Amino acid sequence: MILLFENDFIDGPDKVRIEGRRFKHVMEVHRAKVGDTLAVGLLNDRLGTGCITSVGDHAVEMTIDLAKPAPSPLSVTLLIALPRPKVLRRLIKSCCIMGVKKIVLMNAFRVEKSFWQTPFLSEEHINSQFVLGLEQAKDTIMPEVAFETRFKPFIEDRLPQLITGTTPLLAHPRAPEPCPRRIRGAVTLAIGPEGGFIPYEIDSLLSSGFRLVNIGERILNVETAVPFLVSRVC
Amino acid sequence: MILLFENDFIDGPDKVRIEGRRFKHVMEVHRAKVGDTLAVGLLNDRLGTGCITSVGDHAVEMTIDLAKPAPSPLSVTLLIALPRPKVLRRLIKSCCIMGVKKIVLMNAFRVEKSFWQTPFLSEEHINSQFVLGLEQAKDTIMPEVAFETRFKPFIEDRLPQLITGTTPLLAHPRAPEPCPRRIRGAVTLAIGPEGGFIPYEIDSLLSSGFRLVNIGERILNVETAVPFLVSRVC
Repeated sequence: MILLFENDFIDGPDKVRIEGRRFKHVMEVHRAKVGDTLAVGLLNDRLGTGCITSVGDHAVEMTIDLAKPAPSPLSVTLLIALPRPKVLRRLIKSCCIMGVKKIVLMNAFRVEKSFWQTPFLSEEHINSQFVLGLEQAKDTIMPEVAFETRFKPFIEDRLPQLITGTTPLLAHPRAPEPCPRRIRGAVTLAIGPEGGFIPYEIDSLLSSGFRLVNIGERILNVETAVPFLVSRVC
Repeated sequence: MILLFENDFIDGPDKVRIEGRRFKHVMEVHRAKVGDTLAVGLLNDRLGTGCITSVGDHAVEMTIDLAKPAPSPLSVTLLIALPRPKVLRRLIKSCCIMGVKKIVLMNAFRVEKSFWQTPFLSEEHINSQFVLGLEQAKDTIMPEVAFETRFKPFIEDRLPQLITGTTPLLAHPRAPEPCPRRIRGAVTLAIGPEGGFIPYEIDSLLSSGFRLVNIGERILNVETAVPFLVSRVC
């Protein structure tokens, strides 16, 4: 699917022109010619098809028809201790692909300080991963991401509102309770850093209302744990 | 956890010496000194602890005590169309981390021929990903991987035996039936290449006994789909 933006429109409500990465993709992957039909979706709006009306050296133009609603968002908020930069990129794309619409990247004792310096945290980089994720998933609703660089003020000042009306679960290998399946209503899932949250952090999350749950005896890495947990609770 | 091998043993049944990557890991990550205790596991055997008895320039020695059985294997066989090399590496590690013990990497029309040429398919590379996966997961049972480079002979000659006694499911975005949850007994999960299996391949798998199941409206990439599906059926 090709994701379209408001500023792709030319000449009325159903004509678009795309350039740059998406133009290249259409030419190289789809090998599109005039008259071909592609799957398209308008950012934060509906899905449909685009019929190619002209192919230039740097742009293609399409007439679009947006008839189908975007897939329903998952009612899952992810609260993830900031992982190392390479993992971060793939992880946020993977969250977007699954249909998660709210991600909070948080600090924790075992998050290396340098992880907060990565250019992958820039709005531009994150948005580009989200666009790729939406195109992969055939979705149009852009996720939101928040950064919480200080653990204590986050837990005290913003977490209570974030989890209101949700089931807040904290994944932990030695928790006696297995992670519940197919939870009705909204869920907040907290996932610690490599090496786990420290006891003080776990206590803070428990005091805020989180329940400790396990997903088996094995220690999953964050890239595996996130889709595993999301699938379990949805 | 540090994974131990038969040839690490020196001087009786409970003394080991480790060198190379594991020595470096013990020194740099654990900053181990004489008297420290580390989590260890013996390949295809039990888990336990190792108490460091000497630290040299290139090796540490430990006295080990293996008291705990390895976590139970998942009863899931994965049948995955060979993904691109970069994805392959992370994917097989992720499968190993979850406890999958049997992975078949298969050919399909939409698998690029060049993918079969990657050095990441060598026994050495795959084993090193599995060792990292076992150490991450705190598991000791090495998974098996098989390569099926020709679709038709595989489907006709070896697939029937592979799926005997299992529930064979083929993940497909437009399948009307949702993927069943928490299946009792063994499961075989088939996952297509980027762009999906072609209709002939789907028909062949259906004729072999697979059922088409969906995991929602979104098209997941293989790295996300695999943990999502494994979590769903286990």
